[in-house]
Formats: sequence, structure tokens, C-alpha cells
Amino acid sequence: MERFSIVYRIAGTENEAYARAHDLCLEQTVEFPAELVPSGFIQDHLVGQITKFVPDGLEKYQATISFAIETASNELTQLLNVIFGNISIKPGYRVEEIKLPDSLLQLFKGPRFGKAGLRELLKVPKRPLLFTALKPMGLSSEKLAELSYQFALGGIDIIKDDHGLTNQSFAPFEERVRLCAEAVERANRETGQKCIYAANITAPHNELVSRARYAKENGAKGLLLAPGLVGFDTMRFLAEDDTIALPIFSHPAFLGSYVLGSDNGISHFALFGQIMRLAGADGTIYPNYGGRFSFTREECQSIVKGTSVDMGNLKTSFPCPGGGMSISNIPDMIEVYGSDVIFLVGGGLFKHGPNLIENCNYFRSLVDAVSK
Amino acid sequence: MERFSIVYRIAGTENEAYARAHDLCLEQTVEFPAELVPSGFIQDHLVGQITKFVPDGLEKYQATISFAIETASNELTQLLNVIFGNISIKPGYRVEEIKLPDSLLQLFKGPRFGKAGLRELLKVPKRPLLFTALKPMGLSSEKLAELSYQFALGGIDIIKDDHGLTNQSFAPFEERVRLCAEAVERANRETGQKCIYAANITAPHNELVSRARYAKENGAKGLLLAPGLVGFDTMRFLAEDDTIALPIFSHPAFLGSYVLGSDNGISHFALFGQIMRLAGADGTIYPNYGGRFSFTREECQSIVKGTSVDMGNLKTSFPCPGGGMSISNIPDMIEVYGSDVIFLVGGGLFKHGPNLIENCNYFRSLVDAVSK
Repeated sequence: MERFSIVYRIAGTENEAYARAHDLCLEQTVEFPAELVPSGFIQDHLVGQITKFVPDGLEKYQATISFAIETASNELTQLLNVIFGNISIKPGYRVEEIKLPDSLLQLFKGPRFGKAGLRELLKVPKRPLLFTALKPMGLSSEKLAELSYQFALGGIDIIKDDHGLTNQSFAPFEERVRLCAEAVERANRETGQKCIYAANITAPHNELVSRARYAKENGAKGLLLAPGLVGFDTMRFLAEDDTIALPIFSHPAFLGSYVLGSDNGISHFALFGQIMRLAGADGTIYPNYGGRFSFTREECQSIVKGTSVDMGNLKTSFPCPGGGMSISNIPDMIEVYGSDVIFLVGGGLFKHGPNLIENCNYFRSLVDAVSK
Repeated sequence: MERFSIVYRIAGTENEAYARAHDLCLEQTVEFPAELVPSGFIQDHLVGQITKFVPDGLEKYQATISFAIETASNELTQLLNVIFGNISIKPGYRVEEIKLPDSLLQLFKGPRFGKAGLRELLKVPKRPLLFTALKPMGLSSEKLAELSYQFALGGIDIIKDDHGLTNQSFAPFEERVRLCAEAVERANRETGQKCIYAANITAPHNELVSRARYAKENGAKGLLLAPGLVGFDTMRFLAEDDTIALPIFSHPAFLGSYVLGSDNGISHFALFGQIMRLAGADGTIYPNYGGRFSFTREECQSIVKGTSVDMGNLKTSFPCPGGGMSISNIPDMIEVYGSDVIFLVGGGLFKHGPNLIENCNYFRSLVDAVSK
């Protein structure tokens, strides 16, 4: 009987942590008093098994737990439930790494484009990619479209809706998408570049797919989605839909609490790297270190690892650090991230100087230097 | 311009906390450098406003922030995004309470049955209700149906799938639902009671609604759903579907990290009380204090408050404490919770004694005593 493994970091003394690991084996599967678990198949296979237990710092232990693949029911929702469902409610458990056999990985298509596919779509073979956001909320669709045009003229590769723009009265979804997509195409005709507009389709359950289709049919070449608000499996569903087939960028909204707990949660590596890939993100947006959020450089680097760690048939995805980045940091960021990265600069593009197109040109010149 | 208010607990010295409150006003709306926010409508209305800022313990402050209702775009997904989207990624912010004007509340139907409706459905006007779960994972559909029959004969009011039972090969969804619903109806014919079977429809995006419909058409009288796995708005969508119209019980799986952080997250009151009601839960399952989870008695009592606090047109919902409860604690629990509660006893029903029906009878006798 085939199994998958999850590496957890468990807090406590050695005895406490081992007892917690043992408890997890029951909690995440049978949820049943140990002494009453039926012998045979259930006890021998369905209950989780501790396959490794090693120290991981002061009063922390790393436990690898294996689960029968049958527990996950061939569903991303239930796989996530086995990984962290009830255990999320207990202090002392952090998901570190997800290790799935090919038989499970093959249930998921993962990123449709991945790094190579997105580079091909954008016709940018080597340099870091440039990403920005349409903001602030409150601008009309016409003004957002004008911004789109300037960003595209300035050499940005991907222009997304700010993640708070959904269907507000001042810039309704359909009008905004139509105008912004058109503005980007107009700029592309002038520049000869392949800039794409990514529409935010984070929306109520019953409108999400129709917004994705509308975006596709009206010229958007990418989608933005916050799985913390709509569910990871909803992102997977959209990513696998061959009639939509647009690159998907995941936004971290509403997910921060999973990574901010010291002794509970999910690692940056697993959440923003591995789980986003399982759910089909071609690019994973996360707050960069040194900006207005609190992730450390090491945490950001672990996300990069999660976007490219071997996951069988799943393509790699692009790390998209953003959040309070300024253009002047780009050379340092290139040192850290190398070329296989998408830099998301939002407000910072406006702050650099009075002329938005010139700011974009400058941003672009910094990354162009890399590919020379 | 109408506004809604969110009460946050913010960590830091007075100056730090106030700066954080100010930052939140921008982060959750325009996400734009303060000095560049356009004057007029955007600066005066769309940016959040600090309406109250008071101490709340050592280096904690309670800040009430008001937001223009337009920011929420008439969508639960975007409302949650304004409440806690990006701020979830910053340490020091905890959502304490959600205060919505009627104009926003009326966008949501909330619990379809609520406390009164569920009591009417079950024909139990006064006493605490009894809830149990079919487990352990790994039993066949036939064995789970046999358990259902015994639970219903023993006087349980609501029998749900364990939240880890989805569509596994050993008890596939359709077979399990059909057999368990049938077994409960058979017991009801013998007892004259109105016990209901609640099917777990937590499932991939593309199967969730069809499972809900299958459950409805095959005799399930309730639904179990884990919004942490499928999204809160998906629960809202199902709760509002008049063709399904079954009571919904929310399960806390994958949501624990929101309440376990000390300085980041969402309060028990807001998450398991208010948000579950906005999303349509008739009963909200949460881990009881003193069981195998870590919630305190005060946290559990705050959930009870959240299920019944005035939210305009939204019905109240039932608190459903569970998780390692034993039958012998029931008298104490009645002291704490009173009669308007659903006690969820799972594994504990098996542990009390060798005869499951007698255990159920005993459980029932303890709550029957209340209504005498």
C-alpha cells in the first residue's frame, strides 16, 4: 500500500514532541481513541506512521509521518485536510515539507505554464520579469486602463489588478478588464512587446468561473487569484480548465496566519512554494523581505526552493516577491534571487519619480542589465 | 457614504500600535504610499479611518477602523479581504469583532435554519441537542450505516460523517450517503424521532455542489462542510441555494492557525461565531475546552457569544463544542453552555461502555434531565 510523507516540526521536549507526533497519526486519519482503533487494515495502514523523528533545535523535533495515499481520496481538499486539517487547531505543529509519490502527484496538473511556459508566452528568455499592480482602489476603469497603457509602454511584462479590485462600483470587473486588456494590447502594438494584463478573478463561488471566462474572452492574458479567500482547490480547478488556459498568479491575502505562528502553521516553503504548485499557480506572489512585511530573507529563499523543488510531473513556478519593494533595491534583489524571478513593484513604481513611464524604463533597465 | 467597522487588537507601544492602525487603513484598501493617495473621494472615503483607539492590556490596543461599504464590493470574499487580507501577513493584528450595517448584512442570508429552525426540524424544543460522528475512517459504508442505525436508535439527534470521510475507496461518498441516510430513517421509523444524517460534502470545487445535491436527493437531512478547505464563500453559496436547503454544520479543519497566534489572527468570537454566520452555518463545530484541543473556557464562551450577537437579519447559529468530549463531562458542560447548544461527542461515545446504544441512551438521559 503506497504512502505519502509529511515532515512536521513539532514543539516540546523529546517525550512531549514524540507524544504529539503519535497523536497526529491518529488525529489526521481515524480521529479515534488509540485503544479502540480496529486492528488490521485500519491500524496497520490508515493510521499515520512515524517514519523519522530527529531533533531540530531547542525543544523542536522534526517528525516525518507517512499516510496511506487512500486517506487523501484523490482530492486536493482532502489531501490538505490530512496534512493539516485538525492539527491546525493544536499548538506545536508546523508543516515543513510535503513529499508525495508520483501516483499522487499525477492527480494534479500543477502550473500549466510554469517558468518556461511563462517566459515563452512573454518572449523573455533570460532576464528577471517585471510585474506591477493597478492601484489605488477607487480609480475609474478608464484611469486604470491609462495606467496599464503607461506601464506597458514603460516595459513592464505583467500588469495585474491590485488584489483588492474585484467588482467595485467605481471600476466594475467587466468594464475594467475590457479597458485594461485593450490598453495593454494597444501599447504592445506600439512596442512590439508581449506584456500581459492579469485580471483579478477572486470572487464569490458562483461568479468566479464566469469572471475567468469573461477575462479570457476580453483580452486578459493572465489571472490573479487569492486562494486564501476562495480555496486552494478552486485555483486548481481553474488552472486545469483547458478552455481558460491562462497563467495564474496566486496572491497571499488571508494566508498570513499560517506562516506567522512560531509553533503552529505551515512553512513558507510548503505554503507559498509546494501547495501553490499543487494548486496550479504559475507564479506565487509573496511579501519580500525588507519591504513593509516581515518575512526574512531566509524565509523568502525557502519559498524560492519550494517553487522549484522536485515534485515529479509538476512544473516549477515563478517566485514573485513584492510588497513595499522599491526600484532602487532591484540590483540587490538580483544578487539574491538571480534571474529566474518576477519582481513585483507596485506603489514603488509611482514613488521613484514623477514620470511613470520613465520609472518603468528605469526598472526595466536594471533587469535588462542582467541578460547582457 | 455608509461605512462598516472592524475592531482589531493591535500589539505594540501606544505609538507603534497607532502607527500600525494607520498602516492598516491603507494596507486594507488602497495599498498605496500615503503621500501619493489621491485627495478627495479616495483619501476621504476609501482609505480606512481610525474611529476609536483605546488600551487593551499591556502593549495592546483596540482600534476600531471604519471602511466604506463600497470597498467590499457586495461580496463575502472581498469583505473578508478588506477585513484581514494583507494584514494577515503582518504580525501584530488580530480581528476582534465585525460590525456591519444592515445594508451590508442584508446581502447575506446567513443561517437558513438557525437555532429555532433546527429545533423545529428535529422536533426538540428545549434540551441540548446531541451530535456524533461516523468513524473511524476505514470502515465500510455498511459498517458506517450500522453505526448510524445504532446512534439513531440510541437517541442521538444529528449524525455526521467524520470530517475526514470524503470519497475514499473503502466508503465512497454516494454509497455511504445512501446507506447511512437509509439507516437513520429506518431507526426513526422505529423510534418516532427525527434524527438527521449530515453528509460531509467537503470536496473539490467541481464536485461539491453535485455532492450536496446527491446528499439531498438520497435522504441526508444536513450537510457538513469545512470552509477552511473550500472557502467561506462556497459555504455561503450552498447555504443560499434554495434547491438544497439543508442545515449546514461548519467544521474548523485547516482554520486553527487563525486563532492560535497570540498577536496575529482572528478572534474565536469573530471566526467561529460571526464569520461562520455570515457564511451560513446553522451550527459551528469547534474544539471544546478540556478536551484534546487547547481552547480555553473563555474562548469557547466567546464563540457562543459570536453565534448569537446581534447581526441584523442573520439568524443565530448553534455552538457545537466537540473534540475529545466524554459523556461524563456533559453535566458540567450544561452548567456552562445551558440548553442552547449541540454537544458533539465522537470517540467518547464508544469509550463509555461496551454497548453503543446504551452509551447513547445514557448521553441522552443527561440532556433529557435539563428539559424536565
